[in-house]
Amino acid sequence: MPFHCDFNNRLMLGHLGNYMLNAADFHSRDRKFGFDYLTTIHRAWVLSRFAMEIEKMPKAYDKFYIETWVESAMRYFTKRNFKVSSLDGKEVYAYGKSIWAMIDTRSRQPQNILEVNDGLISDYIDKEYPCPIADVSRVIINDDLQKCRSMHPKYSDLDINGHVNSVKYIDHILDLMPAQTYKETPLKRFEIAYVAEAREGDVLNFYKEETPEAVNVKITKGDGEETETCRARMIF
Amino acid sequence: MPFHCDFNNRLMLGHLGNYMLNAADFHSRDRKFGFDYLTTIHRAWVLSRFAMEIEKMPKAYDKFYIETWVESAMRYFTKRNFKVSSLDGKEVYAYGKSIWAMIDTRSRQPQNILEVNDGLISDYIDKEYPCPIADVSRVIINDDLQKCRSMHPKYSDLDINGHVNSVKYIDHILDLMPAQTYKETPLKRFEIAYVAEAREGDVLNFYKEETPEAVNVKITKGDGEETETCRARMIF
Repeated sequence: MPFHCDFNNRLMLGHLGNYMLNAADFHSRDRKFGFDYLTTIHRAWVLSRFAMEIEKMPKAYDKFYIETWVESAMRYFTKRNFKVSSLDGKEVYAYGKSIWAMIDTRSRQPQNILEVNDGLISDYIDKEYPCPIADVSRVIINDDLQKCRSMHPKYSDLDINGHVNSVKYIDHILDLMPAQTYKETPLKRFEIAYVAEAREGDVLNFYKEETPEAVNVKITKGDGEETETCRARMIF
Repeated sequence: MPFHCDFNNRLMLGHLGNYMLNAADFHSRDRKFGFDYLTTIHRAWVLSRFAMEIEKMPKAYDKFYIETWVESAMRYFTKRNFKVSSLDGKEVYAYGKSIWAMIDTRSRQPQNILEVNDGLISDYIDKEYPCPIADVSRVIINDDLQKCRSMHPKYSDLDINGHVNSVKYIDHILDLMPAQTYKETPLKRFEIAYVAEAREGDVLNFYKEETPEAVNVKITKGDGEETETCRARMIF
């Protein structure tokens, strides 16, 4: 898809993230855990953490498929992994790991995943299929990051629930680095931990710290009193 | 694809535009006019004008297909149309019209389309297939629009050539209206005329005028001396 590629002729990470999350939804939907079924019982998945590791980004016209599977399910969290490969399976483009919670859409409170569909999710767990990247972490970062941008989320930033879209956060975080960075050094790992939801009226503040190992990012919402919405790490 | 939907549970216009342009590329690629072949002869397609008219935006999980065909080809311009329908063909979601020029990638000068592949494009013209929406216009607007935003294009705004992505312009233009607008009134028609290319270092200035019939937008690049990069109109 050339119109999903950056100036390196490679798929943009945000689009890859989008493809993975859509694959996750199709996979869970086929197993009675999709957003559309969950809505009818006032439940929704909330993405809590997400990590992607790139072996080699697909180029324009490279066909790939995405595998996704549930690695584990506990009361309040389930782990879902991803593998992106070429059609012949010979080339691995990327891996992904994610952690999801389930909430009640009225109270926004966490719900017991194992109570939905009588614990059916346990039937789909595959602990063995390999996803050889580091676990998705809480992304622990220092507290003295430099504020580098503030913005108001706009129409194209908002998801189906009117919250800032998980993937748009990824785009905004990548945009904190000059485009030139991505010409010189391919991004190896991107991980993000979502802490609180933000909406259209909120102001988002972006904080950044560059260390030799990584670029760390914290995003808060609020003007004056700030609450953390997410934190991320990019490893080049 | 739920992760491509807005808070109305409908596909976002930017994503629809992306799907159309990718369909255009696949269609022309199958006919020896794709970006990858053109690169080898130092040619590239440049999108000059683009209009989309929405009958009814697909909801999450609605499957659709995109038809695209060449309506005409002249020396310096070709017209390409789009139709987006449900899989059974009973429901039309949207139509699109576009005009493309071909440039030499070294000189950036317009090239004669009919000279490429010995005029092969003429074999693919379908004048009859209906695309019942108004022609894509030059988007004539007043000169006294109000400046409402300035921004620097960032990594996620840039396309394969390092220019601001045609579709990201669409997102930025939609974002000039409060998100609430799209809850209250569905967008009926969006059209855009691309005038000049912008790059990472440029500052983009957004000008807007709201009339009872439409929202008109002009985008310029430059600080002090400004050059128009595109103009657009949204009809609700």
